[in-house]
Amino acid sequence: MSKNLTKREEDYSKWYNELVVKADLAENSAVRGCMVIKPYGYAIWEKMQAELDRMFKETGHQNAYFPLFVPKSLFEAEEKNAEGFAKECAVVTHYRLENDPDNEGKLRVDPKARLEEELVVRPTSEAIIWNTYKGWIQSYRDLPILINQWANVVRWEMRTRLFLRTAEFLWQEGHTAHATEKEALLEAEQMNNVYADFAENFMAIPVIKGLKTESERFAGAIETYCIEALMQDGKALQAGTSHFLGQNFAKAFDVKFTNNEGKLDYVWATSWGVSTRLMGALIMTHSDDKGLVLPPNLAPSQVVIVPIYKNDDQLNEITEKANSLIDELKSKSISCKFDSRTTHRPGAKFAQHELQGVPLRIAIGPKDLENGTVELARRDTLSKESVSMSDIVSVVADTLKIMQDELFNKAFKFRNDHITEVDDFDTFKEVLETKTGFISAHWDGTAETEQSIKDLTKATIRCIPLDSMKEEGKCVYSGKPSTQRVLFAKAY
Amino acid sequence: MSKNLTKREEDYSKWYNELVVKADLAENSAVRGCMVIKPYGYAIWEKMQAELDRMFKETGHQNAYFPLFVPKSLFEAEEKNAEGFAKECAVVTHYRLENDPDNEGKLRVDPKARLEEELVVRPTSEAIIWNTYKGWIQSYRDLPILINQWANVVRWEMRTRLFLRTAEFLWQEGHTAHATEKEALLEAEQMNNVYADFAENFMAIPVIKGLKTESERFAGAIETYCIEALMQDGKALQAGTSHFLGQNFAKAFDVKFTNNEGKLDYVWATSWGVSTRLMGALIMTHSDDKGLVLPPNLAPSQVVIVPIYKNDDQLNEITEKANSLIDELKSKSISCKFDSRTTHRPGAKFAQHELQGVPLRIAIGPKDLENGTVELARRDTLSKESVSMSDIVSVVADTLKIMQDELFNKAFKFRNDHITEVDDFDTFKEVLETKTGFISAHWDGTAETEQSIKDLTKATIRCIPLDSMKEEGKCVYSGKPSTQRVLFAKAY
Repeated sequence: MSKNLTKREEDYSKWYNELVVKADLAENSAVRGCMVIKPYGYAIWEKMQAELDRMFKETGHQNAYFPLFVPKSLFEAEEKNAEGFAKECAVVTHYRLENDPDNEGKLRVDPKARLEEELVVRPTSEAIIWNTYKGWIQSYRDLPILINQWANVVRWEMRTRLFLRTAEFLWQEGHTAHATEKEALLEAEQMNNVYADFAENFMAIPVIKGLKTESERFAGAIETYCIEALMQDGKALQAGTSHFLGQNFAKAFDVKFTNNEGKLDYVWATSWGVSTRLMGALIMTHSDDKGLVLPPNLAPSQVVIVPIYKNDDQLNEITEKANSLIDELKSKSISCKFDSRTTHRPGAKFAQHELQGVPLRIAIGPKDLENGTVELARRDTLSKESVSMSDIVSVVADTLKIMQDELFNKAFKFRNDHITEVDDFDTFKEVLETKTGFISAHWDGTAETEQSIKDLTKATIRCIPLDSMKEEGKCVYSGKPSTQRVLFAKAY
Repeated sequence: MSKNLTKREEDYSKWYNELVVKADLAENSAVRGCMVIKPYGYAIWEKMQAELDRMFKETGHQNAYFPLFVPKSLFEAEEKNAEGFAKECAVVTHYRLENDPDNEGKLRVDPKARLEEELVVRPTSEAIIWNTYKGWIQSYRDLPILINQWANVVRWEMRTRLFLRTAEFLWQEGHTAHATEKEALLEAEQMNNVYADFAENFMAIPVIKGLKTESERFAGAIETYCIEALMQDGKALQAGTSHFLGQNFAKAFDVKFTNNEGKLDYVWATSWGVSTRLMGALIMTHSDDKGLVLPPNLAPSQVVIVPIYKNDDQLNEITEKANSLIDELKSKSISCKFDSRTTHRPGAKFAQHELQGVPLRIAIGPKDLENGTVELARRDTLSKESVSMSDIVSVVADTLKIMQDELFNKAFKFRNDHITEVDDFDTFKEVLETKTGFISAHWDGTAETEQSIKDLTKATIRCIPLDSMKEEGKCVYSGKPSTQRVLFAKAY
């Protein structure tokens, strides 16, 4: 299995595509640009969902569900948002098929069943949600509204890649309504912090928190907060965004409230989302030439036990030990499966579990039975050790914790080693092409300079980091004055 | 609040619609036939999802995700299925909007962005899934495939009602592939049993397990298992279906496998689903003229504490007691919220919690503080009692268990009282109009008789019960011989 995987240094993009398919995470479907998320990939997504959902609820949010379709007249109400998504909208125009009179057994769109108003398949739900909120909000007592939705959305992308950019994807989208600008700003920042916390402490992916420049902002937002991660090939990946929408949607949908002074005002809004794109970030942060590497938090099975035996007596003895081990691990909330398939040899099982990133592998063979030991193998370091059966539960528990930390630390070091301060444009171009990664450079704050740099190098401003110092300097491109470094990179 | 709810005996249908909206479960949206599921309604749906998901996984199923869209050529491949759904399909024909040159600030469908092949928004996913399974199945070693998907589906219904019949709804759809007919049949029956177990033991909704007649079967199925529930107004509601699909989809999508004798054969299939329609079943099984009644298993909050106070000292003392009570209840996995809103009086709070079906209400007032008691009110019976503070945790735990059982028993008795054996057609019509409920009658097994009865009475055959005895008799309509009674009813 893993021997068929293209090596990362040969062709990183090919390695990624192969890994996604061979590790049974996802595959392309018969629908252009839409993927099938396979059970193993979906099980990882479910772990992300569960943790995010817990974090959203802990911060006071509730889930709800809004329609898949947005009537065109609502979709176009917030002009910037509409403009931003119009070019990639799937549009429903008819509501019925009929037998095709020219093609026996085939169907055709029934021309009589044309919708009076076309329906856009939601690329994002601000329009339909703010149109709904209008009916829910009269007074400051109705605020804040703190709602999240788990849903599918569709953006008709021309060039798609599994998880990273697909025509349909799964995501969550938070949509909140507030009485004051300050509260909405705090909410947008809070949710960006939740994303950063989740990425770093649950997915072991280090991220930089920042603000998007105007040209990279969400269409319709006043300010877009984001978390940016760095992939192993030195390209950045936007892992989550949280938008302060000001009163733009309230104005577009005429959502006013009576504030606590009895005056009418437009409601303040935020929206924030992460998607199945995080699966791509996960894969490209931790995995290696043998396949997927999963932080223990995200592994559908954290441990797999593979029996090695020559006869049924040995298998029975191993099975008994495996079952009691599984029970003990389960009591410590560690998930473990026993791979007792008779259709595969141990070598093939080892390769498959490596490819699929199971964090720990326990092999039990005849010698282990004699010695009261097991062989414990770590997926991340590929190291093996013999562990006494009496110690194995605590060793597994400790090792999983260590792996979670070490995966983060390794990615953190890589990321930090790939932030390069640059002060002239020749070096900028050279670093971008050779060392890759983030370039920390001064920028004059204009969209023109941003665009020129993008045209010349394909690098974009990933973010204006929230925690960076003010520093006087000169724009790396125009030489004009600048007060802060921003992060450039090529990006997914 | 509750005083505004129409009484059930006045107008059951109006009562239902009002309850759904006033209890904050769902509302109609700007999109024809599509609903907004509000946070309180969605929280109940999440409870259903969590339990069903647990039951599916316990029976060996995994979740996955397949595309929202089905290319028309795939959709029409299984002819019966296509014919069954063609008349209610939302169809995507274009993938872009553009500025409308005749209407400044408005958008229109870009005529240049017409899809080569139209995409049907899935009304159900057999077609896209079996087209995918084709690539996954070569040998009996690849079987069974036991997959479930949580998803939204769209069926363009002309007459819609919140939860019961909406153009878009949320559901789960299981799709399994098997090497033998017997295994697939067992799976279809097993999942129908899972649904019955869930309905009765989790939702406290008694159901009858049965088979659909040919004319009521899922389009493309060989056999449809179902669970049928009875609503308070004497109308039946199909609460879940599980289909044995034979080799129909395998043949339509050419999915063959090498069996363990080395021979090629088509794969055997099942599919099964329940939807947000269950919310309608829940409401119409248990609720009353004061609003929603929730079985404790499904209540977002099982207990609410309402403070009654005249001054801050009293409130502080009550708050302290409430917080320690909440902690104690939480340690017993009982969810409880403290309704400390200062914007509402106790009476308004009581009415709201009644309307929203919170199973137990605890009121704590000044006298309770003196006496070391609380007032405990049950939502289902509307009974109240004074309970000593030292006993309250165990009384709450016991009462919730009792309520869950009693709600089932009450509905079970109502349902059984509304199954009437009838042997002549005049009585059939009379019972249907006056007593209502299920009519157990002999049927000659023909679609013609079924249709005639439907035309004359609006009653359909809800199911051929699985557990009913063989019994010689004469068809209640045609007088022809029959070997078993079937259940007729008017239905949602």
